[in-house]
Amino acid sequence: MNIREATSADWDQIWPIFQEVVSAGETYAYEPDTSKEQAEKIWMHAPRKTYVFEDNGQILGTYYLKTNQAGPGNHVCNCGYMVSSLARGKGLATLMCEHSQQVAIELSYKAIQFNFVASSNEGAVYLWNKLGFETVGRLPKAFKHPTQGYVDALVMYKWLDKA
Amino acid sequence: MNIREATSADWDQIWPIFQEVVSAGETYAYEPDTSKEQAEKIWMHAPRKTYVFEDNGQILGTYYLKTNQAGPGNHVCNCGYMVSSLARGKGLATLMCEHSQQVAIELSYKAIQFNFVASSNEGAVYLWNKLGFETVGRLPKAFKHPTQGYVDALVMYKWLDKA
Repeated sequence: MNIREATSADWDQIWPIFQEVVSAGETYAYEPDTSKEQAEKIWMHAPRKTYVFEDNGQILGTYYLKTNQAGPGNHVCNCGYMVSSLARGKGLATLMCEHSQQVAIELSYKAIQFNFVASSNEGAVYLWNKLGFETVGRLPKAFKHPTQGYVDALVMYKWLDKA
Repeated sequence: MNIREATSADWDQIWPIFQEVVSAGETYAYEPDTSKEQAEKIWMHAPRKTYVFEDNGQILGTYYLKTNQAGPGNHVCNCGYMVSSLARGKGLATLMCEHSQQVAIELSYKAIQFNFVASSNEGAVYLWNKLGFETVGRLPKAFKHPTQGYVDALVMYKWLDKA
């Protein structure tokens, strides 16, 4: 088991995870029918860093890290995590989130912000809370869930700087 | 006095307003030294719509409107407004904000979200509140003000749908 930076050769293994998560439409603010090419731009090129969680050559999880706002906001980064349905409930999201906090500190970011956590995604909200992220915002009916309709989206935030 | 969609010919008059606002580093999450070419992409091309406030052929204000989040979040838009220092305190921001709410409704958006309002920008916070925007989030120390240091940034939100 290993978390390492993604290379372009990893994309064929990352794409099924991206597609599975995004086509469900329950967690990420991407178009559910995002094409493989668009997804590669979104996940591999637009972020500052992309990582994979690998086990015996098989990619089971992935995350990106990017600067959340430019200029006066560029000390805060944003991350997104995806885990394959083959590997849910094994703590991969926790390991990747802890890894991303380390990377963020190394890159001199002072905080991580999640901009758009569907409040219906209770597992994620619980996990991010446990990992020290605070709910600092609630966007009324900002997320259209495929079965639950309009639900609130949460903004979650963790200050990393110990000083 | 007239608010109308911007054309590419307007950019030479919009740019000094953008530069004045952004180089101050007090309100917008853009790099203070954003070049004219980068600014044109940000303000004229990336948004879904860009408008100008014109008075006798002179552009005194401008705003953009874009979809804030894709997929399950694409019923909420985001706007940004800028007023020339030559025309501050004359109600232009109010007129542009009211105009943008009309445009948002015509384009079938259900809400407008401001992602990153510097809490130090008290005039803006007061104005958006007066125009019906609620503070739904507070991002601790997310905005680095050039003289005040790290200040909170606010997330402000207005649901437009009357139904």
